[in-house]
Amino acid sequence: MSTTGNASETAPGTREGTPVLDLTQDVAQLTADLLDIHSVSDHEGPLADAVEAALSPLPHLRVTRHGDTVVARTELGRSERVVLAGHLDTVPLPTTEGSRGTVPSRWEDEDGRRVLYGRGATDMKGGVAVQLALAASLAEPVRDVTYVFYDHEEVASASSGLGKLLRSRPELVTDADFAVLLEPTAGTIEGGCNGTLRFWIRSRGLAAHSARAWKGENAIHALQPALAALCAYEPATVGVEGLDYREGLNAVEIRGGTAGNVIPDACDLHVNYRFAPDKTLEEAIAHVEEVFAGYELDVVDRSPAARPGLDAPMARELVEAVGAEPAPKYGWTDVARFSALGIPAVNFGPGDPLLCHTDDEHVDAEDVRACRAALADWLTTTR
Amino acid sequence: MSTTGNASETAPGTREGTPVLDLTQDVAQLTADLLDIHSVSDHEGPLADAVEAALSPLPHLRVTRHGDTVVARTELGRSERVVLAGHLDTVPLPTTEGSRGTVPSRWEDEDGRRVLYGRGATDMKGGVAVQLALAASLAEPVRDVTYVFYDHEEVASASSGLGKLLRSRPELVTDADFAVLLEPTAGTIEGGCNGTLRFWIRSRGLAAHSARAWKGENAIHALQPALAALCAYEPATVGVEGLDYREGLNAVEIRGGTAGNVIPDACDLHVNYRFAPDKTLEEAIAHVEEVFAGYELDVVDRSPAARPGLDAPMARELVEAVGAEPAPKYGWTDVARFSALGIPAVNFGPGDPLLCHTDDEHVDAEDVRACRAALADWLTTTR
Repeated sequence: MSTTGNASETAPGTREGTPVLDLTQDVAQLTADLLDIHSVSDHEGPLADAVEAALSPLPHLRVTRHGDTVVARTELGRSERVVLAGHLDTVPLPTTEGSRGTVPSRWEDEDGRRVLYGRGATDMKGGVAVQLALAASLAEPVRDVTYVFYDHEEVASASSGLGKLLRSRPELVTDADFAVLLEPTAGTIEGGCNGTLRFWIRSRGLAAHSARAWKGENAIHALQPALAALCAYEPATVGVEGLDYREGLNAVEIRGGTAGNVIPDACDLHVNYRFAPDKTLEEAIAHVEEVFAGYELDVVDRSPAARPGLDAPMARELVEAVGAEPAPKYGWTDVARFSALGIPAVNFGPGDPLLCHTDDEHVDAEDVRACRAALADWLTTTR
Repeated sequence: MSTTGNASETAPGTREGTPVLDLTQDVAQLTADLLDIHSVSDHEGPLADAVEAALSPLPHLRVTRHGDTVVARTELGRSERVVLAGHLDTVPLPTTEGSRGTVPSRWEDEDGRRVLYGRGATDMKGGVAVQLALAASLAEPVRDVTYVFYDHEEVASASSGLGKLLRSRPELVTDADFAVLLEPTAGTIEGGCNGTLRFWIRSRGLAAHSARAWKGENAIHALQPALAALCAYEPATVGVEGLDYREGLNAVEIRGGTAGNVIPDACDLHVNYRFAPDKTLEEAIAHVEEVFAGYELDVVDRSPAARPGLDAPMARELVEAVGAEPAPKYGWTDVARFSALGIPAVNFGPGDPLLCHTDDEHVDAEDVRACRAALADWLTTTR
């Protein structure tokens, strides 16, 4: 549960003890200020309060609080609207003695670069700082902007503040044409994401003493054709809206047999299919049913893919503003929530994604500034 | 530990409280008397005492006590010597309310047949009764006989009273030319036994997020050729000294993978090879190394096969005395201990082996008498 918890439709006055954020300062220093407001999942309240308090006074934004999620919208009547979204929560603090990726944050000089260490430096308070700086400074962007700051991203999907917002207040978000998630992408745009499907192939045999194997039916042997189909499978690379998505079909677990002298009567093979955004979930299921014809598949997890929409003019302008070759996103991220609503979405934010959740989280001050500059360019320039 | 425990080289006087066995009565009733002396593994002492006390007074036998194992030998200087061996212990009593295969024993009439119920009725106090009746009644068999009554057969192999006897007093046994184990075989001779070999084939890969499978190496996929070799394998049936042994090569366990989104870095396949007595252990290992060429095999259990020796004249005479077609034994039994010493061995005893260890153990009085008659015929007739 959130520490504040109650959805309020109007911005309240600044709550007592709410930290004051200076959104006009250097965006890298703003990142440090955000790090110093502890916001492990389930404890996003004080940071949501600070965000709400900092944005509510700005006359060009309409601010809505929903649980610990804050939405701030420009309402300029532009022909296009984009979402800039980021989560407020972090994973728990490192428990290893001497970890630098903790709270409070600290600056270090590394080969002349200013590097900020602290929990959330990479994932993703640099991105949140960029959102806040843009929200405060861009009173008249060329496309309307919906800034979404949400809670509970680092925990079970059902708790997601973004998910809850989309279910109970969809009108605050669904009028957008494109979405940018400010998750760390190391300076480039990562578009859309592959979908994922997990299923079990279960074989059942007949137990017997292994000294008289012919009296039983070996359930492990019965899975051999499924494993052969997996090994023969050549995963495709599929071009979708400007990006090449590499697929994958893999056994992730296998379990069978009970003892060294018993013909196994059960064997279960767990398979994960990562599929490109050219396919719906239903098409992905039909595909694996064809690959494993003759076996019954027990689907236990399914998440749709997300289209990047990089062939849209607005997206091409973002690519130009960022100035780096875009890449496909392989892991499943919240961009899929937007894609499911028909809103193409990409990831673009400061920091190296490989540092996420490590005991050594950090971000380069210049990376935060560069991200802000690219998005500001995109939001203020008509090309 | 045994309740008596101390090996004594000479027969002591009857211990106080030792039950008195009448070896001259009907062998089926003798079986009932044996059932009523509780002898679950580790508690064979009182039964070993009774056996020793009953055999020691007989002038044609030399009796030796070794722990709770009793050996009784005729010393007639015959040109041939055979072992008749049986274990004194039983598995624990049934715990199911109303089980008939318990102690004390009871007789039931079934379609005019007299059937004896009780723990050990099948496995194998009927066989022990036959040994005792023959030992008492055959003062001058045509071949010398070594009767072995041993403890701790139903527990770990290392505890076996027969194994301990063969290690510390081999001269009491190894001068035999042939051995009969009186384990239940439902009226026929089961000869020798297949050997068994268990090994693991372990594959090691490289873990990676399953969204980026190409950065890892899938250890489950790496075992597919081994599983394919198993499925393609056609187990042989091998004729050895008059019996056809059916072999088997089977996966008995498979374990791999840790989570639904991780390319597995380890997968282990457990395989059991049951091989005919035409092969030594070393030949069996060489064979599976050829079947799984390219994989390293980690052998974790190995037991040699036992030759039935049914082509020897003495064995052919036993087959004739029994009057039923002999069959190969598939499960590993103590005959292999004799075979390892160069003594061909067969199983032949009263009772249905499928009843062993069940809550409903029983034996038909006529089966016990028929077994005694066949062995008496074999031991007293020169054909």
